[in-house]
Amino acid sequence: MPEIRIDSQSLEAFVAAIFERAGFSAEDASTEAHVLVWANLRGVDSHGVLRVRQYLANIRRGGMNPHARIRVERETPAIALVEADCAFGPVVTTYAMNLAIEKARQIGIGWVVIRNTTHQGCMAYYPMMAVEQDMAGLALVCNPPNMAPYGARAAGVHNSPLAIAVPAQCHDPLVLDMATSMAAFGKVNLAQDKGIPIPEGWALDAEGNPTTDPNQARILLPFGGYKASSLALMFETLSSVMAGNGVLTPFLVGGDKPRPGAQNSVVAAINIAAFTEVPAFKAEIDRLIEGIKGLPTAEGFSEVLVPGEIENRVRAERSAQGVPLPEGTVANLREAARELGVELPAALLP
Amino acid sequence: MPEIRIDSQSLEAFVAAIFERAGFSAEDASTEAHVLVWANLRGVDSHGVLRVRQYLANIRRGGMNPHARIRVERETPAIALVEADCAFGPVVTTYAMNLAIEKARQIGIGWVVIRNTTHQGCMAYYPMMAVEQDMAGLALVCNPPNMAPYGARAAGVHNSPLAIAVPAQCHDPLVLDMATSMAAFGKVNLAQDKGIPIPEGWALDAEGNPTTDPNQARILLPFGGYKASSLALMFETLSSVMAGNGVLTPFLVGGDKPRPGAQNSVVAAINIAAFTEVPAFKAEIDRLIEGIKGLPTAEGFSEVLVPGEIENRVRAERSAQGVPLPEGTVANLREAARELGVELPAALLP
Repeated sequence: MPEIRIDSQSLEAFVAAIFERAGFSAEDASTEAHVLVWANLRGVDSHGVLRVRQYLANIRRGGMNPHARIRVERETPAIALVEADCAFGPVVTTYAMNLAIEKARQIGIGWVVIRNTTHQGCMAYYPMMAVEQDMAGLALVCNPPNMAPYGARAAGVHNSPLAIAVPAQCHDPLVLDMATSMAAFGKVNLAQDKGIPIPEGWALDAEGNPTTDPNQARILLPFGGYKASSLALMFETLSSVMAGNGVLTPFLVGGDKPRPGAQNSVVAAINIAAFTEVPAFKAEIDRLIEGIKGLPTAEGFSEVLVPGEIENRVRAERSAQGVPLPEGTVANLREAARELGVELPAALLP
Repeated sequence: MPEIRIDSQSLEAFVAAIFERAGFSAEDASTEAHVLVWANLRGVDSHGVLRVRQYLANIRRGGMNPHARIRVERETPAIALVEADCAFGPVVTTYAMNLAIEKARQIGIGWVVIRNTTHQGCMAYYPMMAVEQDMAGLALVCNPPNMAPYGARAAGVHNSPLAIAVPAQCHDPLVLDMATSMAAFGKVNLAQDKGIPIPEGWALDAEGNPTTDPNQARILLPFGGYKASSLALMFETLSSVMAGNGVLTPFLVGGDKPRPGAQNSVVAAINIAAFTEVPAFKAEIDRLIEGIKGLPTAEGFSEVLVPGEIENRVRAERSAQGVPLPEGTVANLREAARELGVELPAALLP
């Protein structure tokens, strides 16, 4: 089968139509589709339209709520606690980040904890919202156990990702988006769709034994041993426990399980202008990027990359050439279109 | 030579006397000694009194300022920028964390950037101050390059540490304190003092080649490849660049070098009560600890540890049995006592 490529606008409109047909408002469907395709454009296919199948299943079983009532439960000029009511992750998270940005504009920082969001897509998207307002942005998340803590052979923490971004002047923003596992589960899903094995050290099977078969992988492994394992645990405390909605303990020591797919998150914006001069900040980020890229390379490397650089290159290429989709993802999208009666875009016709 | 142990009170009083004789006020000397011995008590010897020699050298060359004028340069009810004027790290950082705690008490969060601090000792100390006030605490730091970014064979980032702590009810607090390198440089110093090699993957020599000789080690290596390497870079942006005092670029692309030993930092406190009920938060941390520790162990592990657990065990043992000091550290402390005319405590007499 030849590689299928589709322009991002057509893909986004198609995915929005699917979500609208699945019960979401046009606006919410469009936000969700936008964040998914944003990930594909940047080459983060594990967090792109690959997820549509999983989201539709979660909508059907009541995990993602098309009629969510998003509300601010607690608030000061600097912080807020937002109940997401299982809204689409991008819908509530853009709402929360906008709230954080407004607070940061007034008082220097906005720190917003989100309870009961659903999968948020590519976490880098939210700090990048802050960057567009000349702020530093941060986002982290926790949901039920899928990763073995260091020293354990069963899941106990989530491979909670962290994203941080800051603006530059002449260069693209620096944007870090990393899971605390060796790789995100979406990358395991992608290996399934591509029919290729996963590297050693990524995952354990259901019995807690190491595996390279993406179809047997059930439990992720942390990077850096106890370090990322501990980070993941601390992210649960800053998001879920702070929201009064622990999502690890119900699976560890019993208690009410969270709604399917529910997760908790923190988004924060730090207003650069509250601390220093914005042009000087951005110019220094430029110098930092140039300095890092000017270092002599280690054996086996042709260049030193800065956070977000690969993604920005892919974005340039895919914006011009279209988003490539693996066979499995295309098959799932076609099935979703058939089930929901949505017209396929030309590029995805069989 | 038999192992030398000294009770923590005697060690702290002795080290405080040394710093006072080196020109600091009794209060500042005492704060510095307290934070160093706190690290020794928890087994973090790399950040304990091992550092006295290095600090004395830095005081002599004007890097650490006995007469620092600590001042708040910018402030809102939620954030502050503190100029440390090269004060002792623990002196300005406890000041800044107390400021963050007061802000968090009023408005939910306090986020304080510190410019021109000096070595802060064991970073876990500061989040633990927040924990004592029923808050979550966070601290991070950046100083000049000592670690090779992923893909480089020269130093370009600092092995910036991050510490996060939250309170529990029946258990000790969860406290993560990790460098972004495989190991902190203090652990390399400790290997020098002990006369043992360092593990592979910890460091490069001055030419950028891998080494296991602690005396040849010049450049640290990040854990988790690009992940911790990128974290370290982002920490520079949130601390130094936010403070208008970049400490990486002067060594990468030229410009004014920071004062010797100067570094920049962020400390933050998040008031649990602004988000949720404190007793419920602490009870959930207890359940989390019990859940993680109850997981089946991986091969080669006899138990699953939570962040801070090892340190708390060591603290219990050393509080009772005294702090063990390696030969090299004892020799350096004796020399400092001789030079400054401070009486040696009985346990350290030759």
